[in-house]
Amino acid sequence: MSCSDPIAEYGFSAVEASATKLLSSSAPSHPAAFIPLSETPIPDTPLAARINTYAKSKLPEPTYNHSLRVYHFGLAIKRYRFPEWKFTDETYFLACLLHDIGTTDENLNGTKMSFEFYGGFLALDVLQTDGDGEAVASRDQAESVAEAIIRHQDLCEVGTITAVGQLLQLATIFDNTGAYPDLVHRSTIEDVSKRFPRLAWSQCFASTIRRENDRKPWAHTTALGVEEFPSKVLGNKLMAPYE
Amino acid sequence: MSCSDPIAEYGFSAVEASATKLLSSSAPSHPAAFIPLSETPIPDTPLAARINTYAKSKLPEPTYNHSLRVYHFGLAIKRYRFPEWKFTDETYFLACLLHDIGTTDENLNGTKMSFEFYGGFLALDVLQTDGDGEAVASRDQAESVAEAIIRHQDLCEVGTITAVGQLLQLATIFDNTGAYPDLVHRSTIEDVSKRFPRLAWSQCFASTIRRENDRKPWAHTTALGVEEFPSKVLGNKLMAPYE
Repeated sequence: MSCSDPIAEYGFSAVEASATKLLSSSAPSHPAAFIPLSETPIPDTPLAARINTYAKSKLPEPTYNHSLRVYHFGLAIKRYRFPEWKFTDETYFLACLLHDIGTTDENLNGTKMSFEFYGGFLALDVLQTDGDGEAVASRDQAESVAEAIIRHQDLCEVGTITAVGQLLQLATIFDNTGAYPDLVHRSTIEDVSKRFPRLAWSQCFASTIRRENDRKPWAHTTALGVEEFPSKVLGNKLMAPYE
Repeated sequence: MSCSDPIAEYGFSAVEASATKLLSSSAPSHPAAFIPLSETPIPDTPLAARINTYAKSKLPEPTYNHSLRVYHFGLAIKRYRFPEWKFTDETYFLACLLHDIGTTDENLNGTKMSFEFYGGFLALDVLQTDGDGEAVASRDQAESVAEAIIRHQDLCEVGTITAVGQLLQLATIFDNTGAYPDLVHRSTIEDVSKRFPRLAWSQCFASTIRRENDRKPWAHTTALGVEEFPSKVLGNKLMAPYE
C-alpha cells in the first residue's frame, strides 16, 4: 500500500490556491484538444472498484453521474494544463466519487456539520475500512482525499492547496457553473455528458445547496453566497445543451 | 446528554461570518467593562474536567495557557457584545481546549492533513469516547465543537458561521494578533494573562505556523498569508506587555 513518493503520488504537492492566478500563470499557446472518455479510463484496482460500488449504492444517479463527469473532465484538464501533476488517477477517482457523499439525504440530514467536513470524515473511514477485505487506502492516500473533499468549496485567493484538491475544485466548478469553459474541448464535454447524463443536474444541485443552507444556516456553503451560488449553478450556460 | 434546543445550547445558531460586519452591526454605546477571570469560571462538569485533563496532558504549557486565555477572553467578549448568544460555557470551553490540538508535535507530525481539519476529527473522537466512563458529549455537541475547530482559521467575508465558531475565531485572533483591541477591558487582559501567562506565546505560535506550512506546504494555514500571518502574530502590540 505504501509508495515511494506519497506527496506526489497522492496529490499533496502544493499548488496555487487561486484558480485565477494558477490558470493565468502558464497560459497555453493552443486550445484544449478533444480527449474522448475512453482515453481517461477509470482505474482498474480493487480499491477503485470497491469505492465505485459504494458511491453508486449511496449517491442518487444525478450526483453519481456528476462525480464521474468531474473525474473525466478533471483528467482532461490535467492533461491539457497541468501534465506535471503526477498524482495517480486512482487518488483523483476516489476524491471524485466521495466529494459529494455528504449531500445524500441520509448524510445531509444525519449531521449538523457542513457537508464537506462530514464528507471528509466519512471518506477517511470508508477508504481505510474494508471489513475482512484488503481493498483499503493507505493512511496518506485517505488523508489526501479527505483534505481535498473538506476544501472542495474553499475558493481562496491566497495561499496554496493540494494539487488533487485544486483539480477537484476546478472540475466541480466547471461542471456545476460552466466556469473556465476553455479548459475542456466541446467534444469532450459532449462525449462525457453522453456517457454520464446530467439528468437536470443544475436544478438538482441548486436544490441541494438550498437544502444544505436551509437545514444548516451556519454551513460553510453560505461562504459562496446564499443566493449567488445557486444562481450561478442555475445559470450554467456551458452545460445547458446537456441538461 | 440530550438537551431541549441543541441549536442554541451547542452554539450552532448562524451568525455573520465576517467579523467586521458583525462588530459594526451593533456597536455598543459604552466600552468593555472589567470582567475578572473569577467571573468567567470554567464549567464544573465531568466532561469539562475530562477534556481539561486531556488537553493539559497533550498541549505544551504555552498552548494550554493560550487555550484558557481564549476561553476567558471569549466569554468576556460574549458578555459585552453578544449577550443574546445562548450556548453553554461547557461547549465553548471544549472548543477552546481542543482548537489547537492539531498543533502538538505528535499531531502536527502525525498527519498530512491541515491541522484544523485533523484537530476537528480528533475532537469528534475524544469528545464521544470515554473508555468505560460516561463523561461524553452528545453527538450534536461534539459536532458543534468539531465544526468550530475546522473553521477556526476560516476568515470569511461572506456567509455565516456557527455562533460558537465565530466566538472562537474572535478570541483566538484577539489573543494571537491583538486585533479588535476594544473588545476586552485592559484589566481583564491583565488578570487573565497573569493567571495563564503567555510564556512568549507570540514567538511560539509564529513558530508553529511556520512548522505547519513548512511540513505541509499545501496547508490551509497558508490562506492567511505564508509571511503575513506570522508577521501579524509577532507584531502583536496589544499583548506585548504580557509576553
